[in-house]
Amino acid sequence: MAHRDGETLLPFDPADRIDAGLSFIGHIRSDWGPGTAPKNVRQARESGSAARIELLDGYAEALTGLEVGQPIQLLYWVDRGERNLATQSPKHADAPRGTFSLRSPVRPNPIALATVFLTSIDGHTLGIDAIDAWDGTPVLDIKPWIATVDVPPGWQP
Amino acid sequence: MAHRDGETLLPFDPADRIDAGLSFIGHIRSDWGPGTAPKNVRQARESGSAARIELLDGYAEALTGLEVGQPIQLLYWVDRGERNLATQSPKHADAPRGTFSLRSPVRPNPIALATVFLTSIDGHTLGIDAIDAWDGTPVLDIKPWIATVDVPPGWQP
Repeated sequence: MAHRDGETLLPFDPADRIDAGLSFIGHIRSDWGPGTAPKNVRQARESGSAARIELLDGYAEALTGLEVGQPIQLLYWVDRGERNLATQSPKHADAPRGTFSLRSPVRPNPIALATVFLTSIDGHTLGIDAIDAWDGTPVLDIKPWIATVDVPPGWQP
Repeated sequence: MAHRDGETLLPFDPADRIDAGLSFIGHIRSDWGPGTAPKNVRQARESGSAARIELLDGYAEALTGLEVGQPIQLLYWVDRGERNLATQSPKHADAPRGTFSLRSPVRPNPIALATVFLTSIDGHTLGIDAIDAWDGTPVLDIKPWIATVDVPPGWQP
């Protein structure tokens, strides 16, 4: 695969060193695909395009206690290619940056994280206000967003 | 394994339906173990006990661009047992609650998420201000915490 100037590789491919297994719990349904997806969830929200999470059969009961209107932490699997980039040259950056300083989907474990609002709960289907993921993206986890643990102490808007 | 009253199981075990693989990037070094760990990162911070992340060889360059003092999103693997609980009865709750409404480590994909401050960067070792994880917990990812995507719009302290 072609790399941009300044991009460097890890001395190994994390995909060759698998330590644990993930089980997809469902999929994202969105208006986005290759070339059309917003850069992040803020841009997705500005687009006005909502999305859904369709959980696999069996998971509806695990939603008990979640409420429409609350923010959630959504973890999803964005395995679109390489996992072995140490530094990357995003279009928005002047110089190459380390993978762990970026929110790029290209990373050793391509898990994406977005904080979104629950807009509906209907059986196995959840409405969310926005997402930056392609339609069909596998979902790994849903957690309640909790200010006392998810906001760095001292942070002010 | 014994379950508390009201706890229910999924109709399958996610551990038997693995779709993708994780590669550990390092481990947490903390003062905690079974029976001594704080309930969450807020309590960990109140304890005054700092922690470290020791990355595996090869990952130091991927830290380029991270700065001491910034908050990060830390993803870590807390696979302490079952992955097939649909509802759980935490000690703090009056009634059973769905797994996805809790931050419990018992979940289909036992990925934990904490927002912590970077306190030092030295080669493959990162200092962090606090963590709720046991010593030796595998690390999956480090991301920069970014207010515009990680705080729900409209949230006020």
